[in-house]
Amino acid sequence: MSGIADVARRAGVSKSTASRALTGSGYVSDATRQRVRDAANTLGYVPSTHAVSLATGKTQTIGVIVPHVTRWYFGEVVDGIQNALIARDLDCALFSAEPGSANRQRMFDTYLGRRRFDGLITVGLEPSTRELDRITTIGKPLVTIGSYDAGTSAVSIDDFEAALRATQHLIALGHSNIVFLGGAPEDSDHSFGDARRVGGYRTAMTEAGLAEFVQHIPCDVDMPDGYAVAVDFLSGSHARPTAIVAVCDEVAIGAIIAARRQGIGVPNDLSVIGIDDHTHAEMFSLTTLRQSPREQGETAVELLSRLIAKPRSTPERVWAPATMVIRSSTAPPPEPARL
Amino acid sequence: MSGIADVARRAGVSKSTASRALTGSGYVSDATRQRVRDAANTLGYVPSTHAVSLATGKTQTIGVIVPHVTRWYFGEVVDGIQNALIARDLDCALFSAEPGSANRQRMFDTYLGRRRFDGLITVGLEPSTRELDRITTIGKPLVTIGSYDAGTSAVSIDDFEAALRATQHLIALGHSNIVFLGGAPEDSDHSFGDARRVGGYRTAMTEAGLAEFVQHIPCDVDMPDGYAVAVDFLSGSHARPTAIVAVCDEVAIGAIIAARRQGIGVPNDLSVIGIDDHTHAEMFSLTTLRQSPREQGETAVELLSRLIAKPRSTPERVWAPATMVIRSSTAPPPEPARL
Repeated sequence: MSGIADVARRAGVSKSTASRALTGSGYVSDATRQRVRDAANTLGYVPSTHAVSLATGKTQTIGVIVPHVTRWYFGEVVDGIQNALIARDLDCALFSAEPGSANRQRMFDTYLGRRRFDGLITVGLEPSTRELDRITTIGKPLVTIGSYDAGTSAVSIDDFEAALRATQHLIALGHSNIVFLGGAPEDSDHSFGDARRVGGYRTAMTEAGLAEFVQHIPCDVDMPDGYAVAVDFLSGSHARPTAIVAVCDEVAIGAIIAARRQGIGVPNDLSVIGIDDHTHAEMFSLTTLRQSPREQGETAVELLSRLIAKPRSTPERVWAPATMVIRSSTAPPPEPARL
Repeated sequence: MSGIADVARRAGVSKSTASRALTGSGYVSDATRQRVRDAANTLGYVPSTHAVSLATGKTQTIGVIVPHVTRWYFGEVVDGIQNALIARDLDCALFSAEPGSANRQRMFDTYLGRRRFDGLITVGLEPSTRELDRITTIGKPLVTIGSYDAGTSAVSIDDFEAALRATQHLIALGHSNIVFLGGAPEDSDHSFGDARRVGGYRTAMTEAGLAEFVQHIPCDVDMPDGYAVAVDFLSGSHARPTAIVAVCDEVAIGAIIAARRQGIGVPNDLSVIGIDDHTHAEMFSLTTLRQSPREQGETAVELLSRLIAKPRSTPERVWAPATMVIRSSTAPPPEPARL
């Protein structure tokens, strides 16, 4: 394998100049830098990381903390982060921190202390006070994705606003008996995003004079639990709602499947609206508020790059767009005679 | 923040002993190591990575290459790897390498050359010859997860066997007109796993004297494409099959949704079997061959740890289990009169 001496010889410079050109750790003219890089590429030489780290004080790695990668939103965000990092020649160190798990504690206690990253992106992390202390004392640039806002640089949709608009869409169609399905119960600790969405729903209902119909039915934020809980309340003896605002598309799709199985027509008997525009939304003709977690991941990398370049700069708050996509899971409520 | 001097003082040893105890880079008695570790824990001291790397020659990082993390299988594998790594105090550097993407090329050209990892796990990576050359010349321990077998240590289910058993289950119920749905066309480059599953189906059909019914309908390995393609062929004018072996559960679920929408009863008019036991399988009462990608990820970390400890040891091939889970998406074919 070629070494730095071979690269220097080929580029016609000294070893120390070649090293500076490749590690970015001192003055080298653009022309020389390019010549050295070309030589390195031709020879297949890549500088060792330890050498680069010691020379620049940078790890060239970004730490990414997620609760898990097995849900659509998190997987998409991680893919977006990945793409943006690889284009900048940065590595992605991934850490999953499922709420309440032993690994989460270990991650906060050990991994963060190691500081083996130039900056951190947390995705949908809703930290306890103790965890937040730990993150901020680490003293590394930080960007959060998701609803939690610790005054750091942050990217997310406006969860309150998204649920408000979803609810108003149903009210405009003529619905009154609208339930909000999914998310943690309101007294839960780990539910900033859910709680804001419930808040948006509640506000839209109250403002429209529909406070008496407000009903939040909690469930896990995934398709099977949305399905199970919907089977339950759609077959209950109480007055069935004519519309559902789901905390996200996965829960909305679970509810649509539950309704179909019970012979309840969507949208003729029941309207359903989600938030996300999940990969499966089109297949279920789901009306939803579209967000792009992939772009949120890319935006977070941009914010973090700026923070790493200028650590003392003011945090930036980016509100990602949420766009109404009207398909055919929502319609006016059935005529009273049919209720 | 506490430094190594504070740890040494508290443990009653010299700085160099404390350093050896924490980096694992020289002889220290177990009792002393424990005392130093206790002191470090009490003081919240974590050794800097650069120091550890230079002392031990190890990065304490495992590279994980996946095509993407947004599909169930890959997300679960990555979660399993994560859990196993964090328990061993190792970091996970994640690289996605979607077939044909510019990032994939960049990853192979730049990232791998940097050798910023002690070992590599590739997940469902089906490398080109050039990529394989690159991986093997890198000279780091390697474990593959998935069907591709380059003679390295490897973990996967037996894809051929799984599809064979799924097909035999349908044949035993009395079906003859059984199609195989999903996966790349058989002349594709990136489809080792798909091709083995098609092979298992084909063999089961031929051995049962049903060669004339063999039909592989390719589609992308996800729910929406399984749905779209099934809508198409279920409504076609040709003799409709009485059973489907799907390349995986996501495609199977897409087919079930397509059938229901067209008033085709599952399992009364059409049996469907998958492979995976996806999170959504139960919701659709899907009969399937269960595998655990999470456990495969954990097993891969074990294999890799052994290779890192003894780089010249013989590669190990682990066949992960695939267990038939019978729910209610399969049944005997409809009576001929009803066809």
